[in-house]
Amino acid sequence: MKQNLQQKVSYHMDAAEFRRQGHAMVDWIANYYRRIESFPVLAQVAPGEVRAALPPEPPPQGESFETILEDFENLVLPGVTHWQSPNFFAFFPSNASGPSILGDLLSSGLGVQGMLWATSPACTELETLMLDWLVLALDLPKTFHSSGAGGGVIQDTASSATLCAMLAARERATNFQSNRRGISEKLCAYTSSQAHSSVEKAMQIAGMGRENLRLIDVDRNFAIDPGALKAAMKRDRESGWVPAFVCATLGTTSSNAIDPLPDIGPLCREQGAWLHVDAAMSGTAALCPEFRHIHDGIEYADSYCFNPHKWMFTNFDCDCFWVGDRGLLIRTFSVLPEYLRNQATESGAVIDYRDWQIPLGRRFRALKLWFVLRHYGVEGLQFHIREHVRLARLLASWIEHDSRFELAVPPPLNLVCFRLQGGEEPNQRLMDAINRSGELYLTHTRLNNRFTLRLCVGQTNTEERHVANAWKRIQAEASRLAA
Amino acid sequence: MKQNLQQKVSYHMDAAEFRRQGHAMVDWIANYYRRIESFPVLAQVAPGEVRAALPPEPPPQGESFETILEDFENLVLPGVTHWQSPNFFAFFPSNASGPSILGDLLSSGLGVQGMLWATSPACTELETLMLDWLVLALDLPKTFHSSGAGGGVIQDTASSATLCAMLAARERATNFQSNRRGISEKLCAYTSSQAHSSVEKAMQIAGMGRENLRLIDVDRNFAIDPGALKAAMKRDRESGWVPAFVCATLGTTSSNAIDPLPDIGPLCREQGAWLHVDAAMSGTAALCPEFRHIHDGIEYADSYCFNPHKWMFTNFDCDCFWVGDRGLLIRTFSVLPEYLRNQATESGAVIDYRDWQIPLGRRFRALKLWFVLRHYGVEGLQFHIREHVRLARLLASWIEHDSRFELAVPPPLNLVCFRLQGGEEPNQRLMDAINRSGELYLTHTRLNNRFTLRLCVGQTNTEERHVANAWKRIQAEASRLAA
Repeated sequence: MKQNLQQKVSYHMDAAEFRRQGHAMVDWIANYYRRIESFPVLAQVAPGEVRAALPPEPPPQGESFETILEDFENLVLPGVTHWQSPNFFAFFPSNASGPSILGDLLSSGLGVQGMLWATSPACTELETLMLDWLVLALDLPKTFHSSGAGGGVIQDTASSATLCAMLAARERATNFQSNRRGISEKLCAYTSSQAHSSVEKAMQIAGMGRENLRLIDVDRNFAIDPGALKAAMKRDRESGWVPAFVCATLGTTSSNAIDPLPDIGPLCREQGAWLHVDAAMSGTAALCPEFRHIHDGIEYADSYCFNPHKWMFTNFDCDCFWVGDRGLLIRTFSVLPEYLRNQATESGAVIDYRDWQIPLGRRFRALKLWFVLRHYGVEGLQFHIREHVRLARLLASWIEHDSRFELAVPPPLNLVCFRLQGGEEPNQRLMDAINRSGELYLTHTRLNNRFTLRLCVGQTNTEERHVANAWKRIQAEASRLAA
Repeated sequence: MKQNLQQKVSYHMDAAEFRRQGHAMVDWIANYYRRIESFPVLAQVAPGEVRAALPPEPPPQGESFETILEDFENLVLPGVTHWQSPNFFAFFPSNASGPSILGDLLSSGLGVQGMLWATSPACTELETLMLDWLVLALDLPKTFHSSGAGGGVIQDTASSATLCAMLAARERATNFQSNRRGISEKLCAYTSSQAHSSVEKAMQIAGMGRENLRLIDVDRNFAIDPGALKAAMKRDRESGWVPAFVCATLGTTSSNAIDPLPDIGPLCREQGAWLHVDAAMSGTAALCPEFRHIHDGIEYADSYCFNPHKWMFTNFDCDCFWVGDRGLLIRTFSVLPEYLRNQATESGAVIDYRDWQIPLGRRFRALKLWFVLRHYGVEGLQFHIREHVRLARLLASWIEHDSRFELAVPPPLNLVCFRLQGGEEPNQRLMDAINRSGELYLTHTRLNNRFTLRLCVGQTNTEERHVANAWKRIQAEASRLAA
């Protein structure tokens, strides 16, 4: 609204209005979490429905904030899938929390850019410190700590972390000539047939070609077969290819399989291949000593990432990415134009995170991580992670006791993969019926070419009763299908 | 804090605490803007100072929110450079606003993922609609509207938009074979010697090699010389290179130069090169009909981007990126694993934005843009853009009337480039002294190899008095240096 106060014309929201609307927004969010179970988890709208309810043109004049919020509630919210619902068991959790939301709000309010140390020193230093805290909390190798040769950075997603790692691998393998002249070497990369699609996407982006990514066979638990990896590397080397990059996964998207780093690591060393470890969802489990075995062999990793925005109560985006040798990453990305030159950078005493990532600009994401780590403490995070794993195992035990169902694999952590006996069709029908009901939301994958249901426990507010209800609902649907 | 309520153990922040702390955070932000001019604009800390004030290890037990906020205020805030200060004239504005901050808060609270239409339909549809609204508001070509062959998407930054455009160009030039097999063609790209460093960085990432980027000479206003571009393309073509990509800039980082699209466009058509137009900061000006001439020739563009997070009161990150042919972009990025298959995607009736960008995950960024466009209306945005341009021109007129100074170029919009007579040293000293004072913050560039001060007007709360004070301060420093 146009305001005319003391001769001053301005359309900006004034401080009093910001307080009033800000309080209202905080209350809206608090109420949203209170009533979240009253919404269908998966939005029930048809394609185009949300858009059709809104004007096709931007408003010529400003509108009141109340009107905007009213439209949000009535026209937009019905098209939202409720990822924060305790009945959301699809994909991965992407769990948020109060301290994280408020940390992100503070970041929005400050509106600082952390592209260089000099453009907001606290943004860089708090980020480095948070990544160092996590090295300690997850018991990661000392080389990843900023006091050593490596260090950590917040990326938007694990996809970007994989790409950054692959680019550094590409440059290391070509003595930084690909950056200069393009790629002339025959470089190839390896990951398991169960790895995330982001590895293939990164091959495309990096100009390495998806056909030069070898998808290695897996064992019966869907973890990479080190013998097959070794044979593939040998075959490539013999035919003139350079094995440049291996992406191992700790907790695959499909089934939460843990690739065996103690076997993969020495192969990478032998071949001079960069070992990147993607622990996007499951890395959080290493906060608990009893689950830390997933990191066995991590000392071989050239880079590692996990996503607090998946399973550590920190809202998107927040992927934590470490490298053992920061110099390689910086040489991969660094370009220094005149308008970014400054004394701090030239002194070499500071980190400029623009050289650790694809974009130049960056927001103050460390704040939400700092708020989460301090609010929960390591103890609090451990408590909730343990609880999620306990619930997943409880569900697995229920599945094992219903002969109509089978577990696809024993759940290593918080993801349960199972299916109804009888092939693809009843499982697809069961999933569709349940998701359409809006009572819960789960997704599927294919394991050994068999359609498999995935139920991932990890939403912030998921309790035993939600998992129990989900299982009852699934059983009831199975009965209905059988009838 | 561990809570034990009705037998339920939880470390989560409960609803009452969220309301209380949320209101306090909103108030903190409102107060921050009230007292923002009391802080030194450029943080005055030494490297390592912020970090040294904080514990080197994460807290084993949770801490109270009050303690965290107190540490923020006392230990972190002194290390923050105040980008939202009305006395911030460095780099580019990155301006935020009340409606944007609250839209972003709502996005954090909802915590939805918009990687696929199906994972939260409203997230995708509101984004498409906002990008369509902006096609109308900026009078962009109809091909960029989603009702045509193209469409728009929110990227994190203009760097990522440039990379996405370059990748699509690379694939179009190689008939999508680079994605498959890597790059075997001799591809080259063009941009002006004044273009942003992100073009060079994108060449590195895309595997095209920075040496294959031709930096084309500029005219006396630092805009690309179309004759030089034509000659370079011809030379390359004759020696077996494929001119694949041209990045034109509307508003260069150094001096706000506007590359002449009406001359560049036909050259790109003739050579089959992809024309990407980077209007990161300056595109916002096209909201006003009187500044829309910067878009002359935009009908030749294969892709275009501008950043509402620079100069449209929308906090980071929010880069709006359009392509004229969405099929090319989707073919460049698409990878479809089983766990992402769904009916909506397979029907072809929806947009899945994961295929329009580098990462897979994405937050609900359209909300803040919707809030901004509705709160201000086109009229309100035009008002403030006009005011910023007026202030920049006013400053330029003051500079012209002080014989100790000279304008480096006439300011096309909101960026004023100028220098003190007498060479590099006094200008460097003037800038350092002013930035150290904390009273304002400005940065520099080099034009015709001469050190040049840049003063960019565009912060949300910058008024005439701030620009007048800045100029007085600069004049006083010049007098002090002369003495």
